[in-house]
Amino acid sequence: MEFHFLGTGSGVPATKRNVSGLVVRFLQKKSTQWLFDCGEATQHQILNSPVTLSKIDRIFISHLHGDHIFGLPGLLCSRSAQGAKSKLTIYGPEGIQTFVETTLSVSQSYLAYEIEYVVTQEGMIYSDKTITVQALHVDHVMPGFAYKLIEADQPGTLQVDLLKEKGIEPGPIYQQIKRGEVIELPDGSYLNGAEFIGEAKKGRIVVISGDTRPMETMCEFAKDADLLIHEATFRSDKKSHADQFGHSTICDVAKLAKQANVKSLILTHISSRYVDVEEELKAEAEPFFPNTLIAYDFMVHEL
Amino acid sequence: MEFHFLGTGSGVPATKRNVSGLVVRFLQKKSTQWLFDCGEATQHQILNSPVTLSKIDRIFISHLHGDHIFGLPGLLCSRSAQGAKSKLTIYGPEGIQTFVETTLSVSQSYLAYEIEYVVTQEGMIYSDKTITVQALHVDHVMPGFAYKLIEADQPGTLQVDLLKEKGIEPGPIYQQIKRGEVIELPDGSYLNGAEFIGEAKKGRIVVISGDTRPMETMCEFAKDADLLIHEATFRSDKKSHADQFGHSTICDVAKLAKQANVKSLILTHISSRYVDVEEELKAEAEPFFPNTLIAYDFMVHEL
Repeated sequence: MEFHFLGTGSGVPATKRNVSGLVVRFLQKKSTQWLFDCGEATQHQILNSPVTLSKIDRIFISHLHGDHIFGLPGLLCSRSAQGAKSKLTIYGPEGIQTFVETTLSVSQSYLAYEIEYVVTQEGMIYSDKTITVQALHVDHVMPGFAYKLIEADQPGTLQVDLLKEKGIEPGPIYQQIKRGEVIELPDGSYLNGAEFIGEAKKGRIVVISGDTRPMETMCEFAKDADLLIHEATFRSDKKSHADQFGHSTICDVAKLAKQANVKSLILTHISSRYVDVEEELKAEAEPFFPNTLIAYDFMVHEL
Repeated sequence: MEFHFLGTGSGVPATKRNVSGLVVRFLQKKSTQWLFDCGEATQHQILNSPVTLSKIDRIFISHLHGDHIFGLPGLLCSRSAQGAKSKLTIYGPEGIQTFVETTLSVSQSYLAYEIEYVVTQEGMIYSDKTITVQALHVDHVMPGFAYKLIEADQPGTLQVDLLKEKGIEPGPIYQQIKRGEVIELPDGSYLNGAEFIGEAKKGRIVVISGDTRPMETMCEFAKDADLLIHEATFRSDKKSHADQFGHSTICDVAKLAKQANVKSLILTHISSRYVDVEEELKAEAEPFFPNTLIAYDFMVHEL
């Protein structure tokens, strides 16, 4: 998975940080890209990134504040103008459909593709063979959700070299071995397929918080995640401010990451008051959780 | 007047041209700035320009296509976040209020200032001591308007040097002279105030076209204007294309400018297909109207 941070600021766009937008590219299925939140000018950021707008087929909206949705109408129109015909699914709180449909209708914008709207509810909201998405209610000043991506475990690969050493050449028998069956060989001996399959690769878990105060339930939701991408709008001295506006401080999140035993943490949704102090922000998190990155616009993170 | 071209492209944002946005700064009343159209990321462009968002107190929308309005909700919110308290008036076709109110309401955005909505009708839509604004229906694929700014003539200034030469020192008499009155002097002679007032300065006229096919009525509307800012989405070889989508070609507009006898022409709303060919676009207009500029993002034009 590749994470493209298109907008890492909060509230209003600033010269160094645009408002929220994050694209996940699934490297194993190259054509698939998902967008998490769509602040104004997310499509402009995409123009300067390796993201391909027409390949975005799911958009997950955390909540309906302007800095998370005002880029949606323009992005949807440009996706159509670029020739995309494939269905797009938008997940988000109640109201997102009204927002999109009103803006498109007033502007007489006609899209060349279908939009499916899914009102996000807590629990599983999407699942296919390779990935599942779960949502969690967060604690903000309006209804909002965190999203968790859970990759399916990948079965181990067939140990072809070992089989060849045993003189077993490729053929239909390889399928049986792959299924872990016990097979009788021509010489009457038995071969346990399971012994010729490599170790299964554990699917990765990623949590994207949306805007929220620090929450106990987030700790459970993000438990043992490979990556937690969490908002940290304010530095730790602005705790009461953060609380008032439904946000988290760096310290809040670093402690949460440690408690949740995640493997790595990326802080985003940084207030525009913090300019060119990324090292200080990082230093604030590290005593509690050393493996922390401060997101910046156009940062690409591979997992 | 100072014209700040924030977005000079058409349809979708491109790396070199953003979608429509033009700010007029009135140098004589420094605090006043008006915005014409507000495509997505107009507020981002403002961040990189000398324009002050909080000083914009009137917004004129030509029509409701997304590339002319999708930047409005974010710009309005940021104006509030920057502390503006002064009333803002938005002029535009029927529907603009629904667009703004729905986007602000869904996103639970509360502004610290009042918005007045004026549904644009053909004719005079605004007037104060210094300027009048008129609107004209244009010929696009949806209802739209061109706007004309007509500065009031500025009365001539008092020729103080001449008066002093005549031995007339400053005092209440200067007010009478300024009003052009005939005054009896202490020595019994008469002085005609009108002879001591400099020439009146003709108010300037500027027309901003919005999106439109070339129109005879635009010719009358822009008659003798000091500046015509007109869309020219396509080059002249795309005449049928321009006509189909309700736009003008460079040649159309250059001819119109000549026929209307305007003093200068700025072409904008340039299709994103034309990259780095500004000289060619200019060359296409010049045989018909030599005093033509091709607008580019962040161009500042003084009149």
